[in-house]
Order: sequence, then C-alpha cells, then structure tokens
Amino acid sequence: MRRDLFDDDHEAFRALAREFVEKDVVPHYPNWEKGGRLPREVFEKMGELGLLGMAIPEEFGGGGMPDYRYDVILQEEAARALVTLSTVRTQLEVILPYFLHYANAEQRTRWFPGLASGTLLSAVAMTEPGTGSDLAGMRSTAVADGSDYVLNGAKTFITGGMQADLVVVVARTSTDPDDRRKGLTLLVVEDGMPGFTRGRELEKMGCKVQDTAELSFVDVRVPAANVLGEVGEAFGYLGHNLPQERLTVAVGSVAQARSAIAAAIDYTKQRKAFGSPVASFQNTKFELAACSTEVEAGQAMLDRAVQLHVEGELSAADAARVKLFCTEMQQRVVDRCLQLFGGYGYMMEYPIARLYTDARVTRIYAGTSEVMKVIIAKSLGL
Amino acid sequence: MRRDLFDDDHEAFRALAREFVEKDVVPHYPNWEKGGRLPREVFEKMGELGLLGMAIPEEFGGGGMPDYRYDVILQEEAARALVTLSTVRTQLEVILPYFLHYANAEQRTRWFPGLASGTLLSAVAMTEPGTGSDLAGMRSTAVADGSDYVLNGAKTFITGGMQADLVVVVARTSTDPDDRRKGLTLLVVEDGMPGFTRGRELEKMGCKVQDTAELSFVDVRVPAANVLGEVGEAFGYLGHNLPQERLTVAVGSVAQARSAIAAAIDYTKQRKAFGSPVASFQNTKFELAACSTEVEAGQAMLDRAVQLHVEGELSAADAARVKLFCTEMQQRVVDRCLQLFGGYGYMMEYPIARLYTDARVTRIYAGTSEVMKVIIAKSLGL
Amino acid sequence: MRRDLFDDDHEAFRALAREFVEKDVVPHYPNWEKGGRLPREVFEKMGELGLLGMAIPEEFGGGGMPDYRYDVILQEEAARALVTLSTVRTQLEVILPYFLHYANAEQRTRWFPGLASGTLLSAVAMTEPGTGSDLAGMRSTAVADGSDYVLNGAKTFITGGMQADLVVVVARTSTDPDDRRKGLTLLVVEDGMPGFTRGRELEKMGCKVQDTAELSFVDVRVPAANVLGEVGEAFGYLGHNLPQERLTVAVGSVAQARSAIAAAIDYTKQRKAFGSPVASFQNTKFELAACSTEVEAGQAMLDRAVQLHVEGELSAADAARVKLFCTEMQQRVVDRCLQLFGGYGYMMEYPIARLYTDARVTRIYAGTSEVMKVIIAKSLGL
Amino acid sequence: MRRDLFDDDHEAFRALAREFVEKDVVPHYPNWEKGGRLPREVFEKMGELGLLGMAIPEEFGGGGMPDYRYDVILQEEAARALVTLSTVRTQLEVILPYFLHYANAEQRTRWFPGLASGTLLSAVAMTEPGTGSDLAGMRSTAVADGSDYVLNGAKTFITGGMQADLVVVVARTSTDPDDRRKGLTLLVVEDGMPGFTRGRELEKMGCKVQDTAELSFVDVRVPAANVLGEVGEAFGYLGHNLPQERLTVAVGSVAQARSAIAAAIDYTKQRKAFGSPVASFQNTKFELAACSTEVEAGQAMLDRAVQLHVEGELSAADAARVKLFCTEMQQRVVDRCLQLFGGYGYMMEYPIARLYTDARVTRIYAGTSEVMKVIIAKSLGL
Repeated sequence: MRRDLFDDDHEAFRALAREFVEKDVVPHYPNWEKGGRLPREVFEKMGELGLLGMAIPEEFGGGGMPDYRYDVILQEEAARALVTLSTVRTQLEVILPYFLHYANAEQRTRWFPGLASGTLLSAVAMTEPGTGSDLAGMRSTAVADGSDYVLNGAKTFITGGMQADLVVVVARTSTDPDDRRKGLTLLVVEDGMPGFTRGRELEKMGCKVQDTAELSFVDVRVPAANVLGEVGEAFGYLGHNLPQERLTVAVGSVAQARSAIAAAIDYTKQRKAFGSPVASFQNTKFELAACSTEVEAGQAMLDRAVQLHVEGELSAADAARVKLFCTEMQQRVVDRCLQLFGGYGYMMEYPIARLYTDARVTRIYAGTSEVMKVIIAKSLGL
Repeated sequence: MRRDLFDDDHEAFRALAREFVEKDVVPHYPNWEKGGRLPREVFEKMGELGLLGMAIPEEFGGGGMPDYRYDVILQEEAARALVTLSTVRTQLEVILPYFLHYANAEQRTRWFPGLASGTLLSAVAMTEPGTGSDLAGMRSTAVADGSDYVLNGAKTFITGGMQADLVVVVARTSTDPDDRRKGLTLLVVEDGMPGFTRGRELEKMGCKVQDTAELSFVDVRVPAANVLGEVGEAFGYLGHNLPQERLTVAVGSVAQARSAIAAAIDYTKQRKAFGSPVASFQNTKFELAACSTEVEAGQAMLDRAVQLHVEGELSAADAARVKLFCTEMQQRVVDRCLQLFGGYGYMMEYPIARLYTDARVTRIYAGTSEVMKVIIAKSLGL
Repeated sequence: MRRDLFDDDHEAFRALAREFVEKDVVPHYPNWEKGGRLPREVFEKMGELGLLGMAIPEEFGGGGMPDYRYDVILQEEAARALVTLSTVRTQLEVILPYFLHYANAEQRTRWFPGLASGTLLSAVAMTEPGTGSDLAGMRSTAVADGSDYVLNGAKTFITGGMQADLVVVVARTSTDPDDRRKGLTLLVVEDGMPGFTRGRELEKMGCKVQDTAELSFVDVRVPAANVLGEVGEAFGYLGHNLPQERLTVAVGSVAQARSAIAAAIDYTKQRKAFGSPVASFQNTKFELAACSTEVEAGQAMLDRAVQLHVEGELSAADAARVKLFCTEMQQRVVDRCLQLFGGYGYMMEYPIARLYTDARVTRIYAGTSEVMKVIIAKSLGL
Repeated sequence: MRRDLFDDDHEAFRALAREFVEKDVVPHYPNWEKGGRLPREVFEKMGELGLLGMAIPEEFGGGGMPDYRYDVILQEEAARALVTLSTVRTQLEVILPYFLHYANAEQRTRWFPGLASGTLLSAVAMTEPGTGSDLAGMRSTAVADGSDYVLNGAKTFITGGMQADLVVVVARTSTDPDDRRKGLTLLVVEDGMPGFTRGRELEKMGCKVQDTAELSFVDVRVPAANVLGEVGEAFGYLGHNLPQERLTVAVGSVAQARSAIAAAIDYTKQRKAFGSPVASFQNTKFELAACSTEVEAGQAMLDRAVQLHVEGELSAADAARVKLFCTEMQQRVVDRCLQLFGGYGYMMEYPIARLYTDARVTRIYAGTSEVMKVIIAKSLGL
C-alpha cells in the first residue's frame, strides 16, 4: 500500500543510503560476515557521507535533523540489498538517544563530533549474566569515591562491545535495598580505562556482522564527568528509550520480511521443478500472497507507529504491540519464503538462509515476546 | 494506537449512531435474531435519523456526504454493542454504490428518496447455484424484446433477498460465446414483477439477523428503463465495486474482533476459576495481549486502506490483502477469546458465541481467502 | 495407516452399528436436530440391538463384554455417517462407568436392566453455575437425615438433563471446611422425586441433538439406597473416570475430523470453479493432504491411548495429551475442510457446517485445553 | 505414553549405544562441529562396538539382525545426548539398504566387511544442480564401453561426499528419450577413480558435523562389476527405499524435539526471571505442555509407522505423512523451546540453538513438505 511517511528530504537521504549500501557494503559483506563485525571504516565512511549524524546538532558536525525516519530509511535500504548494518543500527537508534537526551554541554563537545564522524563507536551495557532484562535485579555497582565512581560488575550480550570506544554502563549507585529501581545510573566507560576488559565474544546463530560480547569491570574509576544524565535516574531513562528500541527492531523485521519475499519471487521464477517454474505452482503463489499480506499488515502498523513516535505519542504498550507483531510476522514470512528455495534455502550462500538465522533473535532481544505480552496485558487493565 | 481517520463531523455521526444502536437495536436484537431478519422499521428509523442516506444527494433526502467513513462508523458502533446491522451494511456499502454510480436522472428520482428514507430495501443478485463467484460462468439471461428485457435465471446466497423491494440482477445480455465477460448487464427487478419469486431461505450457521435467499426469475419482463448503467458493462461495474465490498467485510471483522476482546476482558475479570479471577492467570493475559496486538495490526492496515479508498487510490490487490488479513485475524481472535469463556462461550446467550458463528463467513463471502490470494499473487507478478 | 485395535468381534459389532446408523439414524437426523434431542425410541432400539449394554453383565440383559473399543466403534460409525449420538455417548462412556464400578448388588438389579435396554436414560450432574470444573468449589449439599439425604443445589451444563430418568448428582456430604475434597458423594436422583426440577434448556452453538440443561434440587429426599459407592469418596471416583471421559471426546474428534475430510473430498471433486473441479487445484490437494496427515497423527496417538486404556494403563496426563491434541486437530481440520466448500460450508444443510459448530465445544468440555495443559505440565515436573 | 516397540535385545543395544554416545561422542562433539565432520575414527569405533553392522550378515562381520529398530535406537540415543551422528545415519539408513538389497555375491564379499567395520564410508549421489529431487530430469550419463561404464555428470547436496570411499551414483544408462524413468542405473564409484573429483563443500545453516558436497564425474570409467542391482532399474530401487529414508528423518525429528523439551525443562527450572524460576510461569508450563503433547502425537504416529515398516507394510503415502507431520512438529516444538531460553537460545554454546538450525533442513531434504503433500494427495484420489 502507498506509504505517506516520507517527504522529499527523506527520499534524497534514501537515494544516498541506497548508493552507499550498493557500493560500499554489498561487495564486502561476505568478508565482514566472516570477520564477525563491521570494520571501523564503514562507520567512518558513513560519517563522511552524513549518514551517521542526522540527529546530531550541526555545530558538532551532524545533520541537525533529529527525525527517526532517517533511521528507518537506513534499515530499509540495508534490508533491500539483503544485508544488515546492525551495529550501526544499535549505535544510532539505541545508544545515540542517551547521548542526545542526557549529555551535558561539556560531554556534547567531547563526544558528539566523534559520534557524527564515525570515529567513536559506542555500546550500551545493560544486561547481566543471570538477570536478563530485569533491571531491578541488576548487580553492577558504582560507588562514589572522590570525583570518581568505582565501577564493578559483569555485563553480557553487549552488541558492539568488542569495538566500542564508549560504553554506556548501567550500574547501581544506591545501596538502599528498598530502592531497587531508583539507584541506577548511566556511566560512560572509555576504552583503555584500567579495570575495563572485554571478555569472550559470544558465538551467535546469526547476526554475524555484529559482535556480541561479555564485558567486565573491576574497580574501574569512572570520573563523575562521565556520568550521563542525573545520578540515580537511569531506570527512567532506560524506560523512556525502550519504545524506540523496540520500534527499531520492528523496522528491521518488516524490511527483512519484505526482502525475503522479493528474493523468493526472484528465485521461484527462475527455478524449475518437474518442468515448470516453481513460481507457477499454486502453492507458491498462495504462500507468497499470504506472506505479502502479512508484510503489508506489519508495514501499516509500523508506519502508523513511526508517525506517532515522530509526534512523540507512541505509548510503551503500542511499541510492544508493534514489536510483537512485526517480529513474529517476520519469522513466519522468512520461514515460508525459505521453504520455497528447497535445499538451497539451507545453504548460507543464499541470503535467505541468513535472513532466517538473523530473524530468530528479534523475538528475543529488546524484550522477548513474552515481556511484550506482559506490557500489553497491563495496558488492557489485566 | 491513536487513529487519525475521523474528524468532528464523523464523531457527531458516531454519537448519533451509538445512541441509535443502544436505544433502537440492542433491546430488540434477540427477537430479530429469532425472526431471522432486521424488520423494515429499523431501516425506516435509520432513514429518519439520516443514518442511511449520507451518500445520497440532499435533493433526494440524503445527507449529500459521500464518504465511506460514515459506513465504517456504523459498523463499528454496531460491533461495539455486540450486534450487527448486516442487511443495512449490504445495502449501504455493497448495493447503494451501484445506484449512486450508474443510475440515470430518472432512476435517481424514482429510487433515491426511498433508499434514503429506508422505505426501499434492496439486494444484489450475482451468485448462481454451481458457479459461485465466477462471473464468466454466469448463466442467467436477459433477452431484449421490445422495450423490455426478458429475464430468466436462478440466483442464490442473496443477502436480504426475502425483503428486497429492488433487486439488482446481473444477467447475460449477449449470447456471443467468445465474449463471456462483455455481455453482462445490471437490471433492477422490482418486487411484484410477474415471474420473480423468492425461493427457500437458506439456514446459515450465523448471521441470523439477515436473510439469505434463493431467487428465481422466469420470463420476468424488466423494462429497459430499469437497466442500471450501460448494457453489457456490468462486468466492469462489479469489478469496480469489489474493493469496497471487501473493505467493508474487513471493517466488520476488525470491529467485531475488537468487541470480542472487550467482552473477554469483562468476562475474565468477573469469572473465577480455582479461586482467582480468570483474568489473573498469565495464560489469559497473554492470550488477550496477543489478540489485542493482532487487532491493532488489522486496524492499522484497515485504516490505511480506508484512507486510500477515500482518496480513490485503493488497489484491488490491496483491498484483497486487507480482507484476507482482517478476516483471518478475526477468526483467530474470536476463537481465542471464546475459549476464555469456557462452557459459556458455547452458549448462544453469550454474544461471543454469535461473534464466532458470524465470523466464519467472512473468509468466504465477497471472495474467499483463496480468491484473495489469486488476486494478490497476480499483483506480485506471479 | 493400518490399525491393529480391533478383532473379529469388534468388526461384527461395527457392521451392526453401521447398519443401525444408516437405517435408523440418518433418515431421521434432521428432525432430531430440530427437536433438540435423540428420542427415547433411539435408545430403546439400540437396547434391542444390543448396542447399549455391551459392558453390562449378561444376567442383566447386557453383552457381558466390558471393552471400551465397542464405544469407540459406535462413535466412529456415527461420525462416518456424518451424525452424532451424543447423549448415547455420554450415557455409555461417561455415566455408565459410575454404575458399573460403584453400584451395589441391589442397585445393579434395580438399574442395569433398564440401562441395557435403553428404557432408563441417565445424566451426571457435576458442574455448578460459577464453579465450572473446580470440584473443590462445589456447593451443592446432601445432609443425612434418617435413612435419606436431603439434597440442595443447582447444576448446569447437564448433557441429557431434560430426558434423564436417573441423575447421578455430586454433592457435598461433609461440612468440614478443611476437607474440601473428601466430602463429595454421588447420589442417584430419580425422575419425579419431589424438589427435583429441570430448569432452562441452554441454547448451544452446536450439538443440537443433545439437550443441555440446568437442574435444580430443593430439599430433595434421596434415600441412602441411592448413594452410589461410598459416602465421601466421589472426588476419587470422578478423578478415576476422567481419563476415559477425555479419551471419549478425542475419539469423537478424530472420527469427525476424518469425516470432514471425506466430505470435502467428495464435494471438491464434484464442484467446479473457474471451469475445473475444485479438487484439481493444488491448494485443495495440499489442504486435504495436510488435514489427512493431522488426522493420521491423531488416530495413531488415540489408538495407542485406547490400547493402553483397555490394558488399564492410560495415565491421566496421557489422556490429557490425547484430548488436547485431538480436539485442537479437529478444529484445524474441520475449519480447513469447511473452507473448501465456499459459501455452502456456511449453510446448515451441509453437514460440514454442523461438524464445525459441533467441534467448537470439544476444546472446552471434559476439561478445557487449558486444564489439560495444567495436568500435563504437572506430569513434566513443572 | 508407554511404547511397545522394543524388546530386550533392543534395550541391550540401547545401553551400548548410550554408553558410546556419552563416552565417545559428547566430549568431542564441539571439536567435530568445528571440523565440519565426524572423523573416521568414530565410524571405526562404532564398527568395533558392533553398532554399524547390525543389518549386515554375520559372515561379513555384521550382527545379522536386519531390524530397522536398531537404527531408531541409535538416533534416539544421539538426540538424547543433544548430538547427532548424521553421516552415520545416512550411511546406515539411506545408503546401506542399497547394498543390502542389490549387491551381488562378489560385491558383498568386497564391501560388506568394510561397511560393518566402519572402514568404508559411503555416500549416495542422486540430486543434481538444477533438477532437485526430480529423478526424471536427471542428466548424468553412464555409457557402456567394453566392460566399463563411462560416467559423466555433476551431483550436489551429497551428504558425506567429502569423506566417502564408495559413492553410489545414479546415472542415466539409456538415451531413449521416451524412457525417462527406465534408464537409471546405480554405479558404485570408488575413491581414487580417475575423473572423480570432490568440489566445494557447501556451507550449511546447521548440521555442522556432516559435510555436504558437490561431486564431479568426468569420463570416470566404472567397471561393470560396480553396477549395483540391474542396469536400468534404479528408479524403482530409489522409490523402494524412499519410505525408509523419510521415516529416518522423522525418527530424528521426534527424538530431537523430545530433547529440546528436556533441555528447556532443565533450563527453565534453573533460570530465574523477575525473582522466580522461569519454569514457574504459567506461560512456560503451557508452552512445554503443548510441546510435550505434540511430541507424543508424533511419537505415536512414528512408532506405528516403524512397526508397519518392520512388518514390510508401510505405504509410501503413510511414510510421507509421518515425515510431514514429524518434521513440522519438530520445527514448532524446537522453536517454542528455544524461546524459553531467552537470549541464551541464540547462542551456539547452548545446544538448543543447534537443534534449531539443524531442524530447518528436515522439512526440505528427503523430499520437501510440498512433495510429501503431492504424494499424500495422490493417495487420497486427488
């Protein structure tokens, strides 16, 4: 269905993004997958092209256009070319908002230029081994000591953790046991700070161009100047940012499901079985028609949510609904498309196989489907 | 999610519709179900209130506001009160468009006042026994004879057929065998015309307030003045109107699925099992959260389609997608909600049971889900 | 797949049952549906043919062959002919076991001949308004008074309640609040006992040849001679009989799903769409192949469970699994088959429509799918 | 549910297999996955233990017990320990039958000892690039020339192709264009024959301990003594063996789905979320109960089919049904179990992630789900 989300500026940005993806990503992608990450040069190239800093004020080298739709376009253009820019996505849509909303003037000067130019890579360290997404159970601590905080703790499932120059760490700054939510604070740990080490890189089923790391903090002295926002307010900050993080997952899910259909249409038109193109079988037609229908439902729901988000009106429950629907839809659609490839669908040289293994995480990260249901049920008064 | 489809005029109409439904429909509804149809007085009351003729020009007693959103509101308000106004819906959203688009000046004068005031009830007779929705296989014939057409044929599955004063009949006016599509014409058969008889009333699984009839035409002389539109052009007319007919089914599906959730929330909050409200079980919460998510996806897709339809830009394939998704979603949602009622869900005194039996037809009429897939697949180049 | 469940005696019984169904049920079935119950003559005819009392000792006019497989065959033969004998089924598979296991010598003499000959109809009254299947919450009471028990209470959802000569009522005979399970007793209330009245007959979505009633007991004096089994032991009795009750539901589900496929194959071979038999479309073939696969899975699981049940080794959890799987399978299969009928699938004159409305209750009665999951989860140590 | 498939001999074999898997497989498995295949020592060790040659006559060093249930047990024991022995499985259940049924006396002497002792590894080369499982479209040719056949062709998706000492190649020996089925012959190509080369090893989504290769045959001179069975009869041989091949896939699917549940029960009992074990949530219980139900349905269906297969009575259509049901069930169950692991489910160090990627191929190989439906539909007369 015709979309009304984008204006001419967006479309210009889209053209730029498309060209970048085709020229600077697609030819190198298989190597990046083998290497397990996006090289720093990608970020720098994107910085140069102005693709990274649209939301950063112009005085720091950004585009001065804080508009979530640019992030949408980047994901859509990557998916269209059957690749992902996953650490970029995390940086722009999950981490950058913390800097944009909570960095003070000095921090802006210090970090924004690097974030806009792609020379500073970032990560956010929230999840801990054993506690998952339950912030109230978080055990990392940051104890004030002079003008520093002494940080101790272990984090896991950190996207981009191996490469990050700046890690936004969530830690407990209050020991008041009755106040399990209030005492969380964001601290920016910098590469090279003594006591900050990167542990194992986790081997994932998919998402191969993005590293996922365990990080360790042992008596890391983080200067108070590196506290992001107010001490003790991180719980609210995280909650505030979660709808966008979830929307972001949904954007990728819809775009990748759409790409899966396009790939399956191409394949089934070329491939013959029992003497006829696979696309000529009624089953193929019906499967693809059903997939296309699901994607359009997801797209309509998502576009509506993006519009509301741009207007600052997307509720947490609606973001949860959008994530739940779009990620489960992605799973169904990619699975059905893969099936149409027969044995080739199981071979990693066919992008559909990667779309499939990439898809399995979207129902899990940024809050599992089950967590989404908890949030939605609450909004229904249940 | 917040909807942007309606303005103040729509909301005023909604208030009127809501009051009408609550006062004039809900108390009588169980009797109407037993009687198997909406009494003529309902149409007349709606005519009086201006609910029937919004799209009819003011000179004929209508509202002069041809805007599909009024039809949407009527269906939503009925569903909200757990009733349906199905023959009204058919009249307004399926049949009236033929009159509005194709009636000539004389026909307008003759029929519009009655259609606006609810004194003229109408039906459209397309389907024939044995051919289903395959227009090319239609066998009813209308042979020109002087200033009349002599109509012969049998029609089935005619919604409102027992009550209709005017029946728009599709018949073949060309006998050219090579021209199976071109020779179809619309003729308005009036109650009382010799040779026009109403056969059996079909017993349906649900949709009890609407009759579904078999009609028979034996040498019915229909004056040429009752031809609607151009002779031989009906195939195009029908095709042109189908997207709205399908959208209309989807509107009802989404509205009724929404009502099923509301009913289930109410019920599970009151009902106890093993000492606790059924609503307090995680399974109940998750089921309703999943249903709510599906309904919001359907609503977003539908609202987008309604907006495009109002702008005259809804494609046949997108209408097919919307019908396919929303009706299948309705089925899943109503089924899951019913399950939460336990044994009461199977008792017809609980509206959820009626929602369930009503729902089963939406994947079938106005083109089955399979026909929708054929249309969608074509639009994908398959 | 080839079944190994039956021997020659079973097959002889099957032949008898098949002939009975074809001659004595099928021609009258539409009338019985309109009347809302199986007439008493059906029971008497079945009694005459020896179809009712296979499990009753020969001295009382029965067949002396207590073998659950005869009950299986009766259900299969009814389903094969697209009918159900639902009150018969309840009587044989749900109620008769209580008499067989717990009736004392005097009671056997009094009731077995009538149960075998079809002149005594029975019902079991367990469920109460507001408590559902939660036996621990049961509120009906039977207070010992001389040689009688004075019974008070209300029961609902009683299959065959309008016709029953004997109603096995579960009531609380202990007022010890700590002993919510121990104090339940079975009492046989007879037609005509003062204070026993039959209330409303509930209007159901389907299962039209079986009445479902509300029963009321106000100071009914039930002689102690009508207590079935030991006073205070009913909780155990009910629990003991539930696996068979659930198996019985599954037997019907599989048999009816199988019939739905047969009906759909017949229909789609005859019916043409767009010039070809509906059966010739790949979608039709694939749908029916998928349905057939599901039915064979259900049949294999069911047959295994029947075999174990005959050997006295079917666990409660496995009975729950079989009911859960077979009823959900039935729903999916009947729904998919109905869809292949197009508009005719919604018309009650086509048995597929009845199969659909009948099917909706099987996931609910004898314990909902949710209750089954609770039982299964416990067996997994969860 | 209690199974009746196995006797004491089988259980003794099971104990041996279990010990072998625990001692000789589990500790090395992660390394084998990295290496991309089972080392030859595994086969030799299994040969020593008598696990490989149960079906091979004792005179050649085998067990002399041709009983498919031994193969079932091997797969079950591997799955139980969360590993697979996939090339072993292919060798025993897919390839060995060709040798057993069609090898002549001389070939038996030549090859059976090595097959029994695990020193001769084998593969079967059927699929060609571009033709998939459509045997009629096969293009490899073997032209008689003196006492040899000159073999030319390319094969793909060959399980174990990199390691095989003996490759059973299907090639066309007749050029009669009207006889597309009749002219197929099995030829055993041996490692080292000039013109036989192994091409790329395909990178698969899962099944990492098994290589999947492209093989090339250029003017390979295969002595007539290496023809397996009759010239021109391979089409029938392949068709005869397919039911067992499909059953074999189903055996693995059921066993792995069962293991996924066991792993999920363990994990959710240990893992806490929001202060409680994940196993204590109703959603977890219901998901696992539903999975357990599906596995029991699959197991019952499968065990029935194995019994029939042992008796030589499993039809091709029933084998197709069993494969279709069990593989689709596996997918659903493994997916639901994985979800309960949250983020850890996406990490390859948790076996559930491997179960998931392994599972995706079972709906594809040995005939896709779509091919299964074609076969089943035919058996229904469609």
